[in-house]
Formats: sequence, structure tokens, C-alpha cells
Amino acid sequence: MTLNQTKNGVWIYDTTLRDGSQQEGISLSVEDKLKIAHKLDELGIPFIEGGWPGANPKDVQFFWQLKEEPLSQAEVVAFCSTRRPHKSAENDPMLQTILAAGTRWVTIFGKSWDLHVTEGLKTTLDENCAMIRDTIALLRSNGRKVIYDAEHWFDGYQSNPEYALKTLTTAVEAGAEWLVLCDTNGGTLPQTVSSVVQTVVKHLGINPNDEQSPKLGIHTHNDSETAVASSLVAVENGARMVQGTINGYGERCGNANLCSVIPNLQLKLNYSCLESEQLTKLTPTSRIIDEIVNFAPDPHAPYVGRSAFAHKGGIHVSAVERNPLTYEHINPNVIGNERRIVISDQAGISNIVAKARAFGINLDRKDPACADILQRTKELENQGYQFEVAEASFELLVYELLQQRLEMFQLKGFQVNCDMLRGEEALLSDAVATIKVSVNGEDILEAAEGNGPVSALDAALRKALVKFYPQIADFHLTDYKVRILDSTAGTDAVTRVLVESSDGKRRWTTIGVSSNILDASYQAVVAGIEYGLLQRKGETVVESDYRVGNNVV
Amino acid sequence: MTLNQTKNGVWIYDTTLRDGSQQEGISLSVEDKLKIAHKLDELGIPFIEGGWPGANPKDVQFFWQLKEEPLSQAEVVAFCSTRRPHKSAENDPMLQTILAAGTRWVTIFGKSWDLHVTEGLKTTLDENCAMIRDTIALLRSNGRKVIYDAEHWFDGYQSNPEYALKTLTTAVEAGAEWLVLCDTNGGTLPQTVSSVVQTVVKHLGINPNDEQSPKLGIHTHNDSETAVASSLVAVENGARMVQGTINGYGERCGNANLCSVIPNLQLKLNYSCLESEQLTKLTPTSRIIDEIVNFAPDPHAPYVGRSAFAHKGGIHVSAVERNPLTYEHINPNVIGNERRIVISDQAGISNIVAKARAFGINLDRKDPACADILQRTKELENQGYQFEVAEASFELLVYELLQQRLEMFQLKGFQVNCDMLRGEEALLSDAVATIKVSVNGEDILEAAEGNGPVSALDAALRKALVKFYPQIADFHLTDYKVRILDSTAGTDAVTRVLVESSDGKRRWTTIGVSSNILDASYQAVVAGIEYGLLQRKGETVVESDYRVGNNVV
Repeated sequence: MTLNQTKNGVWIYDTTLRDGSQQEGISLSVEDKLKIAHKLDELGIPFIEGGWPGANPKDVQFFWQLKEEPLSQAEVVAFCSTRRPHKSAENDPMLQTILAAGTRWVTIFGKSWDLHVTEGLKTTLDENCAMIRDTIALLRSNGRKVIYDAEHWFDGYQSNPEYALKTLTTAVEAGAEWLVLCDTNGGTLPQTVSSVVQTVVKHLGINPNDEQSPKLGIHTHNDSETAVASSLVAVENGARMVQGTINGYGERCGNANLCSVIPNLQLKLNYSCLESEQLTKLTPTSRIIDEIVNFAPDPHAPYVGRSAFAHKGGIHVSAVERNPLTYEHINPNVIGNERRIVISDQAGISNIVAKARAFGINLDRKDPACADILQRTKELENQGYQFEVAEASFELLVYELLQQRLEMFQLKGFQVNCDMLRGEEALLSDAVATIKVSVNGEDILEAAEGNGPVSALDAALRKALVKFYPQIADFHLTDYKVRILDSTAGTDAVTRVLVESSDGKRRWTTIGVSSNILDASYQAVVAGIEYGLLQRKGETVVESDYRVGNNVV
Repeated sequence: MTLNQTKNGVWIYDTTLRDGSQQEGISLSVEDKLKIAHKLDELGIPFIEGGWPGANPKDVQFFWQLKEEPLSQAEVVAFCSTRRPHKSAENDPMLQTILAAGTRWVTIFGKSWDLHVTEGLKTTLDENCAMIRDTIALLRSNGRKVIYDAEHWFDGYQSNPEYALKTLTTAVEAGAEWLVLCDTNGGTLPQTVSSVVQTVVKHLGINPNDEQSPKLGIHTHNDSETAVASSLVAVENGARMVQGTINGYGERCGNANLCSVIPNLQLKLNYSCLESEQLTKLTPTSRIIDEIVNFAPDPHAPYVGRSAFAHKGGIHVSAVERNPLTYEHINPNVIGNERRIVISDQAGISNIVAKARAFGINLDRKDPACADILQRTKELENQGYQFEVAEASFELLVYELLQQRLEMFQLKGFQVNCDMLRGEEALLSDAVATIKVSVNGEDILEAAEGNGPVSALDAALRKALVKFYPQIADFHLTDYKVRILDSTAGTDAVTRVLVESSDGKRRWTTIGVSSNILDASYQAVVAGIEYGLLQRKGETVVESDYRVGNNVV
């Protein structure tokens, strides 16, 4: 018997791959979907909705490829609507595709709202019930287990309670194992969800502790910013399945955010969703899936955000260090997140000391360097530097003020030329950068081409330095972001460039600020290379004057 | 008697300027704070917390300048802690600063949690009550009205209910008009908030309809993603003040989001917070304040987000157009938002037709142009264009495929040179762009300087065109964003540039995509100029071959 089958077990049903991918800006390849499914499987999610094969050829492919690389424990679920009005379920091509997907579980969604039946489907209320009945019956007769998603259920119940309840009893009688009440438009508040769920439990004689009784689930959207709270009250009133998405992805304002639902249920309301060791994967999973869908993780996300356990302002920070529980609602490690001391223009000495400790430098708070670092940080932040998003640059700043910064090279200057000529078809572009640097007194002049000025400059700089610092060959830029600080002056304003670099193992972010985008990019690129070298200073370096053991930290 | 004094009136208390500004990345100048205060005043917020003068010199300045440009109806409130342990309130410099701020209302926060008294303040439980009593008494004797914020109240109540309640009765006896229960760490779930508020109401004999009874407020944080729901249940159980921030700004995961609290209370639970005409300012206010703090508005924000009423996917869209209430939980116009038909790679013909109608073009869905537009949109989105964030570019695309696009000029080519030399102090930078265009057969060659390559190119292009299109003189870039699409390849990857332009009245966003950042910037800048000209085609244009009346649409 799995954890979810225990008395307080709640089954988490993830629909990131189907409902979540409806979010603007998300467009998943089959490869992406497979990656996400395996991440959810590792996290321990028992039900993963893979997609709607009938409606989307990409999803047919997904279910097919998943057979090649099956999940370890999760049930992957195919999603489909009920049969079309006045047509047989047997010959419904969409239902044939669903059976072909070959999943043990199928989720069928049907109409609960009379208005949607008569206006949307343009059929009768009785025919809609027949559609629900026939569809579930067909699947059952083919040995499938069925989850019934009652679309627009709460609005339907407001409009016509008897009919809404009738669609549920129809689904139960046809053999559905789970009934999921959906707040499709996201307008229902928790208070209403609570009372309506109580009515359903009473009407259908639902008892979470009786294997024979139908089982209830909840599916909410966040249009009223109460999707998580509504999921919780539904569980407290007898629901034992919560449908939602990682990071709350979804159309409009998103679905119930499983990254908040799970810890709320498990750490605060004593329900069981995941094993504790799985729960520590919650934060990494949230971030990895953001990467796969190519979103920057929301730093302010509850539980899993980078700022969820961030502390700012001196006094506060020293208090947290004395007794975390007085300032943190849970221990961040339980969900794989961590406490963070924020460096910002509100930074106090305590923050500086705590932050430095975080990367292995023990500063005495009486050390005058602390005051220097604090003052320099504030000066730079007034110019537009933002160290809370570029901690590698802050680390370099600390080394500098401790006179421990590595002087890699001196820049003599660089020149970048871009020519763009109207060719037959499109613009023919050509960018060349020439750079002159001096390394240990030796002048180096190198030139390189690139797709654009920044990549040309980056290439020329690496070309000039790699002979001295061969590790540079392993580094590459993984992200490059530009932001205008004074957003009233457009391209003439101060430009902030953030560069993320990687050596294949880890990633770090550095910052550059200048009125010239190239200058700002140059600063960030150089800091990225320098930080990478610091991280690998232990490695043997050939042909280099940057001696190993001549420890810079 | 104002609206909030009616039976179902709820007083909204905004703390964007104090608690909200604790959010990472927010750093407000006095000017910013004044602008925000006036926007909140126009929205009709009755209480605006201006800051903590004692703790922050900027805030002293804010209250001082506000006297020069007073608010029309809102009460601006000064925030402060209780006096220090074992010191007199009269001589407490911080309290003197508060009185100097000269506000009619003052919010005092005090400790409710025994642990914070003994471990944080390092004093006795009795002394903490004395600190609350003396501080409020001093302010009352100076004619101030007092709101008492009970910090960490819910955690305090769990730890020591009697003491937590005692701090409240102390505040009431000392003359506090409002008692605000704060969930400072954001860990309390709505179910608990509900039962605890009931206890407080009972214990203090609170009756919202009795002018003589103490009044209750709620202040929540979003660490459990339930701040909005907790505020709502508190009101349903007798609280009549909600403290929160615009867009849910705040430390860690933010404060209760007033942009969701207000419409939930007013449109769904029948409480009164704002006059209906003020409520229509909610969305614009949310966006303007995002601009002031220099954040990109969250498209997925409930109620006020650009995507909150966005519809994707063909069938769905036609259904919405038939009967909005079947797919929208409220009418977006009520809060000043609007329905949006999303153009995306899922776009169907219906979306294209609906979208075109939105900017005044009536397409017949049978018109072959619809299919062309749909196909071209999908091709471009596969290359990295994202029209959902650059609707001006989509509009231009539609004109193009309808053969209605204005051919402003032809680019012959451009060259950009940047020289960066190490000077005495910093890098001396110099960027020059040369551009050759042909307008109505006439070749124009112009050169211009700029802070960087993009601004130089922008300047050269405008210089070449302004003679033909004088309106260009009014246009300027208001924002410039760069994003790397393939985030594994850094600067060599495809670059997407978004440019926001303004003519001082309205703003529009255009997009460019290329492996060369300059090429992508050029595309976006040109589209921005072209779109601006289209918007102002009615105006008389001198010395221009771009004839007025030769209507391009």
C-alpha cells in the first residue's frame, strides 16, 4: 500500500503537460514533455496527465515514445472529452486514439453546466448525460480506469444544482473511479468551494476511508488568487485528489500551484502526498521545469522561490541567525530550498558578514573591510548594479576589497565593427572585434568574428586569454539579459547586462552596468570568466603565469 | 458618511510604500513615493501608509514634501514601533519624529509573540505591554488616531494565547482605534485565520456594526500562497480593515495583493471598498505602479494581468464571443481590464479574425488572407517571434499580408563602429553609426553618434527619416529588452529584442529576431517607427511623399 492509500493520503495529479502548457509563452516539444514527465516521476507525483492525443498529434507521439522510456512509479494519464452528441462512442475517432495511447488510466471531461450543454454543445441535457455514460462505459469495457473531470462544475452547480449533481451520479454509475470538481473559470472562492464540496460529499455518500465509496478530487484555477486555498478546503472536506501544475502554469492566471499545495497539505495540515526525501526535490524540480519551459524562475514564489526565505535589513538578519523559527514559517531545507541573506542597498554589516560566510569567507564584523564592502555595495547599487541577482559579481567585489582579487589581465582597448548590407534576400551581417590586453606585462592583440558585436567581443577576449587560462575553453555563456534602467530614456539610458556562464557543471551570474551596451556586456563577460577561474583555481594550469597554489582567496 | 462606513464597508489600508518596498529589487526615491501616493489616492484607497520616518530619512522627506502636494481624500499614515524597553515614550526620538510627521493617523506595531519579547527585545512580557500602553497613550495625548499592528500575532497566539490576547486588550485600553492581526511570517493558513479571528472577536466583544466597539483589521503575507484567502476569511469573520500592497509587493513572497483582495470583496462577497468608477482604475493603477517601481507587469496576475482575460485556442474563442459569462468569472471592464484574444502558435482563424477586429480591421473568415496570416504567424513564432508580447508588430504583419503595409523606406545598409580605449580613469567609449536608406527613390546617407551601438543606429535612422516623416521627432524609445532564445548557446544563439516606443501619449511594443543583436534591434526600432506613423497618419505631414488621405488601412 502506497503512502497515498493511508488514511490521510492525498493523491497529487499533475496536469503541467496538458492544462499547464495552455499558458501564454509555453510551447513544449515532445522532448520537453518527456523530460518533464520523468522529473515529475522522480518527485513522486502519482498521476501525470500526459496530454490529449485526440486533439494534438504531438501528444500521440508523446505517449508512444513514453513506452520506450517508461516512468518508474507514476501513472501517466491520457485526457479526452466525452463522445460527440448523437454519435456512438465505439466509432468516435478521438476515443479510439485514447485507447491507442495504451494508458491504464484515462481522464474524461464532461459538461456540468446546463448553459454549456445547450449553448456550447447545442444538445439536450439528457444527451449530455448519455455522452458521459457511454464514454466511460466504453473505456471501462476496454479495461481502463477512469477519472471524471466535471468541467465548470461550480458554475454549473450555481446555475442548476440538480443537473450538476446528476452528471456526477451518471459518471459514478458508468464506472468512474474518481470524480473531480473543476472550477474551470477560476471564479469560485474557497468559502463556496467548501460548502459545495460538503453538499457533494453528502449527496454521493462519499467517505474517504471507505474503499467502496466514489473518490472526490478538486481542480482549480487562480483567477481569484485563491486556487491553492480552494484546493486545501476541498481536501479538508473530503477530496483526496488535487489536480494542479508545477509553478502554477496554466491559461490566464494559471492552475492551482502544486509547489504550494503539496507543502501546505503535508507540512501544515498533516496529509501525506510525498515521502519526505521526495519533498526535498520540490524546489529543484520547480526550477528545472522552469528551465525546460524556458522561464526565469519567479524569485517570489511561495516555498520554492529564491526569495521565499530571503532576509533583508540588518537587525532582522541577526535575529534570524539566532532563532530561524521566529522568522521562517518552515525550515526551507525540508522542501529543498535554502535561507538567503540578501545583499541590497538596505544591506547592513550583518548581511555582509552572513553573505561572505555563505561563500566561505569569515569576516569579523569589526574588520574595517566590512564597512568598505557595505559602502561600495551601496555606491554601486545607486549606479544600477543589483547584486541580489548577480552574486558572483558580489563575491568578486568582496575579494577585491580584501585585496584578494585576481588580476587576470589589463584591457588596453577594443574595437567592434558591424557591417550590415542589404543582400538579395536578407541583411548580410558581419561583426568583427579586435581587442588588446596585457597579461603579466605581455601585450596580446587578437581579433575574432561573431554573429553580433557581443559574441565577436566575447570570442576575441577568450582567444586572447585562453593561452594563459586554458580552463576558459570549458566556459560558455548560457544566458545574456539586457535591461534599460531609466525606462524613460530608451537606448540612451543606463544599460544593465546580466551574463550567466557555465563550465558544464555549475552556473553563475555576473553583472555589468554602463550607458554603452557593449561596455556593460564586456564588464559582465570578463567577471564571468574571472569567477569561473576562481572556482577552478585548484586545477593545474599549463603555460600560465597564474600559479597554482598562489592562492588568491 | 463615506462608503466604507456603511454596514458592509471594508477599509483598505495600503502599505506598498512601506512593507511593499521591502521587496528585493524595489528601491523607491521620494519622487517615486509621492507619485505612488497620488495614484493610490486617485484609486480611492482610504489609508496610505507612507513609511517609517524614524527609521528612514527618505521617509521624513516624503511626509514633509507631501504637505506641499496634499492628497485629495486618503489619510496618509506614519508607521512606527513601540518605545524602547525601560525608556520613556516622551523622550523616544523615534516617536518625536513620528509626531513631527504631522499625520492625523499613526500605525504602531508591537510584539504579540512571547518568544519575540524575551528573545528579540530581551525584556519581560509586562514591560512589552507597558511599551504598547505608553506609546499609544503618548500619541493619543498628542491628538493622534492610532492603528495598532499586532506583529506575529497568529504565531504568538499559537505559542501563548493569553498573552497574545492581553497585548490586544492593552492596546484597546490605551486608546487604539484599530487592532490589526498580522501574520508576519506568512505561514498561517486561512482555516486557522478564520478560527483565531472568531476567538478574538468573541474575546474583545467586537461588533462591526457598533461604532463603540474596537475595530479589527488583517495583515497577511503570501508565504503559503494564501494571503488573499486569509484576508477574505478574516473579513467574513468580522475584520473591517485589510492591509496589503498593490501587485502583492513585499518581502520574500509578498503581502496580500490588494489588486485581488478588492475585487474579491466587492464583486464576489458584496462588501464595499471603492466606488464603482474608482474600481475601473484598478488595472491602470496596478500597471502604472509597476512602471514606477520599474517592474514588467505580471501578465498572469489575477484580475489585472494582461492574460487574466486572455483566450487562446479557436473553438474556445468563438464560444467566448457568443457568451462571455460562460468563460469569464467577471466582466473585465468593471476593473478596467479587457478581454484579449491571444495570437500564438495555437492561434486559429477565429483568433486572427477577432484580433484583427480589435484594431479595426474586419476580416471575413473565408478571406484567404486569414489563412496566410495564420500560417505566417506560425512560421515566425517558430523562428522566435512572439506576437503575444509585441502586438504592434502583429498589426504590421496583418497590414503586410493585406498588401496595406506602408513602405516607408528601403535600407541599403548600415555600419556601426565602437571604439573602447582604456583612458586615465575608465574606458572611453565612442559609437558611430552610418546608415544608407532610400526614400521614394532618393538615397539618403546619414551618420550619428550614440552611447552605444543601438542608440547610435537609432539616432542615424531617425536623422535619415525625420525630413520625410517629421512626426518621428515626437517618438522615443521607452524600453529595450533583449532575450536569448536558445539559452544553451549564450551570445551565439538567436536574440529576441523587444522595443517599446512612445509618442508621449501612448506606448507600443515591436519585436525583432536575429542571431545578430544589432540586426534584431534594427528590426524592432524600424517597426516601432512605422507603427507610430500609422497611428498618426491623420496628421498633416510636410515635405513628405507619404500622402495624407492616401489611407494605408
